[in-house]
Amino acid sequence: MVMQQLKTQQSINSHSSETPSNSDFKPWRGLIENYRPYLPVTDTTPVITLLEGNTPLIPVPYISEQIGKGVKVFVKFDGLNPTGSFKDRGMTMAISKAKEEGAKAVICASTGNTSASAAAYARRAGMRAFVIIPDGYVAVGKLAQALVYGAEVVAVQGNFDDALKIVRGLSENYPVTLVNSVNPYRLEGQKTAAFEVVDVLGNAPDWLCIPVGNAGNISAYWMGFCQYHQIGKCDRLPRMMGFQAAGSAPFISGKPVSHPETIATAIRIGNPANWDKAWGAKEASQGEFNPVTDAEILEAYRILAAQEGVFCEPASAASVAGLLKVKDQVPAEATVVCVLTGNGLKDPGCAIDNCNNQVKAGITPDLSVVAKVMGF
Amino acid sequence: MVMQQLKTQQSINSHSSETPSNSDFKPWRGLIENYRPYLPVTDTTPVITLLEGNTPLIPVPYISEQIGKGVKVFVKFDGLNPTGSFKDRGMTMAISKAKEEGAKAVICASTGNTSASAAAYARRAGMRAFVIIPDGYVAVGKLAQALVYGAEVVAVQGNFDDALKIVRGLSENYPVTLVNSVNPYRLEGQKTAAFEVVDVLGNAPDWLCIPVGNAGNISAYWMGFCQYHQIGKCDRLPRMMGFQAAGSAPFISGKPVSHPETIATAIRIGNPANWDKAWGAKEASQGEFNPVTDAEILEAYRILAAQEGVFCEPASAASVAGLLKVKDQVPAEATVVCVLTGNGLKDPGCAIDNCNNQVKAGITPDLSVVAKVMGF
Repeated sequence: MVMQQLKTQQSINSHSSETPSNSDFKPWRGLIENYRPYLPVTDTTPVITLLEGNTPLIPVPYISEQIGKGVKVFVKFDGLNPTGSFKDRGMTMAISKAKEEGAKAVICASTGNTSASAAAYARRAGMRAFVIIPDGYVAVGKLAQALVYGAEVVAVQGNFDDALKIVRGLSENYPVTLVNSVNPYRLEGQKTAAFEVVDVLGNAPDWLCIPVGNAGNISAYWMGFCQYHQIGKCDRLPRMMGFQAAGSAPFISGKPVSHPETIATAIRIGNPANWDKAWGAKEASQGEFNPVTDAEILEAYRILAAQEGVFCEPASAASVAGLLKVKDQVPAEATVVCVLTGNGLKDPGCAIDNCNNQVKAGITPDLSVVAKVMGF
Repeated sequence: MVMQQLKTQQSINSHSSETPSNSDFKPWRGLIENYRPYLPVTDTTPVITLLEGNTPLIPVPYISEQIGKGVKVFVKFDGLNPTGSFKDRGMTMAISKAKEEGAKAVICASTGNTSASAAAYARRAGMRAFVIIPDGYVAVGKLAQALVYGAEVVAVQGNFDDALKIVRGLSENYPVTLVNSVNPYRLEGQKTAAFEVVDVLGNAPDWLCIPVGNAGNISAYWMGFCQYHQIGKCDRLPRMMGFQAAGSAPFISGKPVSHPETIATAIRIGNPANWDKAWGAKEASQGEFNPVTDAEILEAYRILAAQEGVFCEPASAASVAGLLKVKDQVPAEATVVCVLTGNGLKDPGCAIDNCNNQVKAGITPDLSVVAKVMGF
């Protein structure tokens, strides 16, 4: 201890400029730097990054056991991105490109993960971030994250379609860049999640299970797997298994749903923007679209948290709910990756309303009484 | 496109067992596997991991500019750990060792980050997780995360001291392992955050700024820096700059505080468990303890979110608030790391109450009207 303190003092006083070598360690510099050759950026693109990506691919042994047959299941937990969802992957690209093109402001009509991510990256880039919402439709709680990241929220009279119309009109007539799902750079960023899965597993999984709402993420994953396959980073491609909430399942019914309803708000979308791409991914990969009920989604949500220690958004749990639903179809010894798109902390109310545990209150502070309550 | 689909079909049908090489990529396997030689584990320790650690060290250029003098500031964003706080670093160790020792249950008296982390890791290990709280003192919302992870919460009549007494008694008389801050393995896990900082920077920073509540984390960081220094992974040691909330600042007053008060609940602790270790770290590193007011904490919290895109817990922002407060002391060209211990999503109410932005409501859905509201 004395020696340690002595060494400490010497080093504080010396401040050598030589840097010790840690040659075996490569710090993660964000997904654009890590996957630069595969992304539409140049040396002059200003990279706006929060070091997003590189999210953990967590083995889920309890769920693997439910399926049996030697199947290995992992969850790709994109809720651990900087703003708590996979949207950051697309946003680092969209905002970097907007900055490159000289934009001073960005705009979107989202009330959830997109607006939070857009605000964080835009403000970091020194741009203004506008979020247009319909008056009276959105609780302030849903906007807390966007507001704290510095978004300027404007609520216009009318419904969501009216808000969307305004957003499009503004981006066409004023110097603001649209970062809604039509922004072409977002899927480019999102495809890196597929790269990471392959980089960790050493190959593509047999199945990729993924929640499908606007269908951008399933399209992006497929782009990523195909691109990595073409350059030999993997020698197979996964079956793309998309799962929709039963009350919001246009890909199952084959046509848009007018009034989508589900507890999984992040995939409550009746008319997906990326219909053709997602359908193509399903077809080309011999995949499937299947529906899962809200009850199945919530059961998977509880299993993930209370058995695996992974707390995700309700919509994210659709991928695991779906896998459990079609488990008889999973080939023996298969490797399966379920995509978890968002952090459960985004929706704490859902946790309180839907966990099975209750607080046992009013217990006498006596050791043996408490022990008995605990079951000892 | 046709060729791509053809290739796709072929690879799906072939399923070669050869794995393409990705030899330059080393997946992160959690902090125990990554820092195994420096941790008290053996080959027979069952590693319970959610792939915690490896959290981003994010440059914060706006804050660096506020300081000037060529100073480079980074934030170590430990809110991106699996359960949203740095507690996961200690918990992977504490729960792995509890499992190794045959424990069937763990117990703690926390209502915040510790209980959430303990529940997630314990349940993942197949153990029961008990959280003892005082009746009526804790809002259910604070417990949402622990409950969803499967914690069994027992509220006993009395205050926090009564709850703590029960927890100690239970761990002494029943087969449950205490995972409160007295658990010796927790600091061992937490010290890896210092390793990561050095691994990314290539050396220790000049300053480490860190919020101080129970003082475990400052002690753990110091252990980590000293250990890395002894084996030559860094050739200097940082000044340990601890910051306490002014209303809860026993290290400033030099004695315990009976009724600590601050908005930064995670560091609202009047009688720190790790007093001697933290004091020793400050002394040995020529560091300092300084107070920051709640107003200063909230200002740093807003700057981090709205200028840098980093949304942390209020307590976390104490490190940045402190750095900005003593910025005149920072040497020119210094490298400074501020520790952000938890995710802002843990406390959305604080975001709504304290962000400067307001929703502009009731706007006519007309392009020029909205544009005018936006300032165009």
